[in-house]
Amino acid sequence: MGERVAGAEIERLIQLLARLPGLGPRSARRAALHLIRKRDELLGPLAEAMQTARERIITCSACGNVDTCDPCTVCADERRDRNVLIVVETVADLWALERAAALKARYHVLGGTLSPLDGIGPDDLNLATLIERIAVDNVKEVILAVNATVDGQTTAHYVTDMISHLSVKTTRLAHGVPVGGELDYLDEGTLAAALRSRTDF
Amino acid sequence: MGERVAGAEIERLIQLLARLPGLGPRSARRAALHLIRKRDELLGPLAEAMQTARERIITCSACGNVDTCDPCTVCADERRDRNVLIVVETVADLWALERAAALKARYHVLGGTLSPLDGIGPDDLNLATLIERIAVDNVKEVILAVNATVDGQTTAHYVTDMISHLSVKTTRLAHGVPVGGELDYLDEGTLAAALRSRTDF
Repeated sequence: MGERVAGAEIERLIQLLARLPGLGPRSARRAALHLIRKRDELLGPLAEAMQTARERIITCSACGNVDTCDPCTVCADERRDRNVLIVVETVADLWALERAAALKARYHVLGGTLSPLDGIGPDDLNLATLIERIAVDNVKEVILAVNATVDGQTTAHYVTDMISHLSVKTTRLAHGVPVGGELDYLDEGTLAAALRSRTDF
Repeated sequence: MGERVAGAEIERLIQLLARLPGLGPRSARRAALHLIRKRDELLGPLAEAMQTARERIITCSACGNVDTCDPCTVCADERRDRNVLIVVETVADLWALERAAALKARYHVLGGTLSPLDGIGPDDLNLATLIERIAVDNVKEVILAVNATVDGQTTAHYVTDMISHLSVKTTRLAHGVPVGGELDYLDEGTLAAALRSRTDF
């Protein structure tokens, strides 16, 4: 705010809210006012939920997911197929795949992608325990569910090389037309991949 | 989330974040993960800032602004012109006008607009103290800085009638072309008002 119209406490709240992804300075102000208006229904509960999250959320030592228990809810779920391990870049990707609810398997969160330009090498990713997990848990298939970006694919190749001496099948996500997508708006690469991987109707 | 992949604490955090204006379910998940990743730099400070806000922020008994002191920083500012009172709908409008920094006066926050359809009448707005403030503080000019909407203008007319027996000048914000605005994108009403209120070049 150009002029100081409210206490330092409100300005600090706005500045911190503005650091959330998806909120800029203007929407942070709107969010702060909304919180102040809904002090008992929202501000209080959210402050407490954040405090709880800060105190209790830990990273799963097995897969890298975040949860309040270690191993996390996903790793501890006995109904999941222990033969399949889905390698993802981030916890957000893990959540996205879980929402798809297509495969009840376990995950391994790399925590990013290899990116030589940004100085991110193999030691910066959660790779050390991957080989151990595959061996100990007798994993049969590793699904490389990384993003279809250059860094993602570089990382996929690196992981494939790294585990090539193990008797484990490595697969990747299919390329194709997004469900509900219109062909006219898709890039040529996706359309070519969708044509090559066509299935019987 | 369709599937429960994380502790109830994380899901509660996401649900509460999703109730902030500007954040939907998807961006609330992203914000929650961002907070968890930046536990010490952001999650902790934000939880504390919210707790502080919850405990300390109060509504100014004079103008209706929110602050940690009563009267608020704006009302307590002795350098402001006490002859001018700017009537606004919300605290957000007060902050917006302060950012403009065009006039160092004081404010009166109505807390909304008259809206018979929504059952909001004069008793629901911060109108009771307005007449008293005008008389006690010897206000010379009341600027009706309400939104240029039907409800805003209805409220402006009501306030004007209410204070018409007092020897106080009532003014309203000028209509015109927004600074940096392109004529082609403006509505006819704004252009007509800008033409009528044209000034010497």
